[in-house]
Amino acid sequence: MPYEGLLQTYKEYLPVNDQTPLLTLKEGNTPLIRAENLSEELGIDLHFKFEGLNPTGSFKDRGMVMAVAKAMEEGSRTIMCASTGNTSAAAAAYAARGGLNCIVIIPNNNIALGKLAQAMIYGAKVIAIDGNFDRALEIVREITAKHPITLVNSVNPYRIEGQKTAAFEVVDQLGKAPDVLAIPVGNAGNISAYWKGFKEYHAAGKAASLPKMLGFEAEGAMAIVKGEPIPNPETVATAIRIGNPASWKTAVAAAEESRGQINYVTDGEILEAYRKIASREGIFAEPGSAASIAGVYKMKREGYFKGGESVVCVLTGHGLKDPNIAISTVQSEPLVVSDTESAVMEAIAKLEGAAQV
Amino acid sequence: MPYEGLLQTYKEYLPVNDQTPLLTLKEGNTPLIRAENLSEELGIDLHFKFEGLNPTGSFKDRGMVMAVAKAMEEGSRTIMCASTGNTSAAAAAYAARGGLNCIVIIPNNNIALGKLAQAMIYGAKVIAIDGNFDRALEIVREITAKHPITLVNSVNPYRIEGQKTAAFEVVDQLGKAPDVLAIPVGNAGNISAYWKGFKEYHAAGKAASLPKMLGFEAEGAMAIVKGEPIPNPETVATAIRIGNPASWKTAVAAAEESRGQINYVTDGEILEAYRKIASREGIFAEPGSAASIAGVYKMKREGYFKGGESVVCVLTGHGLKDPNIAISTVQSEPLVVSDTESAVMEAIAKLEGAAQV
Repeated sequence: MPYEGLLQTYKEYLPVNDQTPLLTLKEGNTPLIRAENLSEELGIDLHFKFEGLNPTGSFKDRGMVMAVAKAMEEGSRTIMCASTGNTSAAAAAYAARGGLNCIVIIPNNNIALGKLAQAMIYGAKVIAIDGNFDRALEIVREITAKHPITLVNSVNPYRIEGQKTAAFEVVDQLGKAPDVLAIPVGNAGNISAYWKGFKEYHAAGKAASLPKMLGFEAEGAMAIVKGEPIPNPETVATAIRIGNPASWKTAVAAAEESRGQINYVTDGEILEAYRKIASREGIFAEPGSAASIAGVYKMKREGYFKGGESVVCVLTGHGLKDPNIAISTVQSEPLVVSDTESAVMEAIAKLEGAAQV
Repeated sequence: MPYEGLLQTYKEYLPVNDQTPLLTLKEGNTPLIRAENLSEELGIDLHFKFEGLNPTGSFKDRGMVMAVAKAMEEGSRTIMCASTGNTSAAAAAYAARGGLNCIVIIPNNNIALGKLAQAMIYGAKVIAIDGNFDRALEIVREITAKHPITLVNSVNPYRIEGQKTAAFEVVDQLGKAPDVLAIPVGNAGNISAYWKGFKEYHAAGKAASLPKMLGFEAEGAMAIVKGEPIPNPETVATAIRIGNPASWKTAVAAAEESRGQINYVTDGEILEAYRKIASREGIFAEPGSAASIAGVYKMKREGYFKGGESVVCVLTGHGLKDPNIAISTVQSEPLVVSDTESAVMEAIAKLEGAAQV
C-alpha cells in the first residue's frame, strides 16, 4: 500500500472526520537515519529523524497540513500567518494545494527575500507592516478574530495535532520509543507535540515506554532556561531565534513529566554540530536543527549517558533552507591549479597533508 | 518494517552481493504526489515523482549510493568527480557517510560558491582547474584510470543501476506502470535509467505494461533534438544545461523502444511550469525539474493526449537547490503598510483586486 500522507495514515489519532479533506503533499514518512559514525563515537545508539525531507523542507508541514485541512473543512477561503521563515513556506504550500489564499504578514525591517521567496513562489501574498514581529502577530490575531480568515500561526491548536505524528513515526520506525528524544526548542511547540504523540501512542499500546525529552534552546534565545522572555533574542540558528516561546508551559511540562530537561547550547556548539553531521554522516540540516545533536554532545560531556541508550535527535529542517550559513561556513575559495594531471595530483596531496583528506 | 534504503529494498535487482556494504541515507522512497489540480485542467491522471525529497535534494542520491557502495566494496578510499552541482553534493554526502574522501574538480570560471557549498559542507575537497568543464572531466578520467581513486561521474555504470530504482518505486506506488513517463533530459542518464528499470520490472512480472518515455531537453541545450552537440548550451535550468549528453544513445533508444520521443521546451515554458506547480499544487522543484511538466503542457497543446492517460512527471530536484531563481521569479518587494488592522485589510483587498487572492 503506497503512503497516503499524514491525515490518512494517522486519522484515528487526529481530529479527522468525514468532512475533513484528506489534504496531502505526502508530508511525513521522513527517514529515521542511524548515525553509524557518531553512535560509535558517543557510545549510544543514535538516530536522526530527518524532518528536512518533508515537502517544503521542514517539520512545519506536519502541523500545517492539519491546520489547512481544518480551515477547508470549516469553509475558510484564506489563511494568514506572521512569519518570515518555515511557517510561511508551509502555509503557502498547503494553501496552494488546497486552493486557498495565503496572506503572510512580516515586520518591515531586514526583509530577507531569500527567506520569503519560497512562500512567495507558492503564491503567498506578503504584506510588510511598519512594526515588529510581535505587532505583526497581534494584527494577524485581530484580523482573524473578526474576519473569515484562518490564523495558522502556532496558536492554531491543529498545528500541534499534526506535529505529534512525528512521534508516532519514530516509534513505528524504531520499533519502540527511544530512551531519549533530543529536540531543538524555539517556539517550543514541537517538543510539546512530540511529547503529546509519545503519550498518546503509549496509551494506545503502541509503545511500551516513554522517552526522556531533552529540549535545547540556543544560548542567545534561552527564555525557558532563564525563566524569562528574551527581548532581543540572537542566534545563528534563525529557526529557533525566539525570545518568548508560545508553547512555553507545555514544553516545561514535557520535560518535567518525562524526567528530561530544557537545556541550552551555544552558537559555536550549534555550528560545530552542523558541520559534524554533514561531514561525518552526510546529513545537511538547518543550523537550528543541529541544536539537538549539539545538545547530545553537551550531555555526553556532562556524563548524562550511561552508554547504549537509544537516542533520537530531531533534525527539524533541511540545510538547503539556509544556504548563506553553508557558504559562510565552508572554506571561502577552492584551490586553483593548472589543468594537468600532475598539478591536480599535487593539489590532492596537499589537501591530504593539510586535512587528512 | 521500516524503510531500509535502496540497496536493501531492491537488492535482488541491483549489483549487490555479500561484500557490498548496505550504505544508506534512506534515499529513495520519495513521494508520488497526484496533481489534483492540474489533472483536472489537463484531463489526464497526472502524478509527480518528487525526487527533491532525496537526502541531498536530488535524484542523484539513487545512483550515488550504489556507486559509492561499490567503491567501498572494491576497497577504494577516495572518490572523484567533475561537477558543480547536484552530482558533487550527492558524491560528497555518500563519501562522508561511508568514510571515504571526495575530490571535486571544477573549471575555474564563474565559480558559484552557493552551488558548491553543499558539497563542501559534506566535506568534499574542491580543486578548480584552469580549463573548462570538459577538461575537468578529462582530468578526472585520467587520474582515476591510473590511481586507486574511483570515478563517480555518470560514466560510472553503477550510477544508472541505482537510478533505475525510481522506476520500480513508480510502479510500486501507482500499482502499475503509467501510460506515460515524462522526464527532463540533460545528461540523459536518468531517462535511460528509468527505461531500464521499467523493462526489468516488466520482465520480472511486476508491471503488466511499459510506459511511453517522453524526454524533454531545454531549447538552448537540445543536442539530442538537433542531432548534434551544442558547444555552448544555455538555459535557466542549470541542472540540464548540457550540450553533449553522456547517455545520448541509450536515451534515444529509450524513446524509440517505448514509442515515446525526445522533445524540447523553452526557458519561458520551463519557468511558467515551475511557477505553476508551486502555486497550483504546492510543489517547489528545481527549474530543470519543471522541464518534464512543461513538456506535458506542450504535448497537451499539440493534441498528444487522448484524455485519461496516467502520466508520471519526474521532478528531479528540490526548488531549494536554486534559491536565486526563486528570488528572481517572485515579486521583488512586499507591499508595505502601517501597523493597523485597517491598513492591512486594505492591502489585502488591493491584492485581491490585483491578483484574485
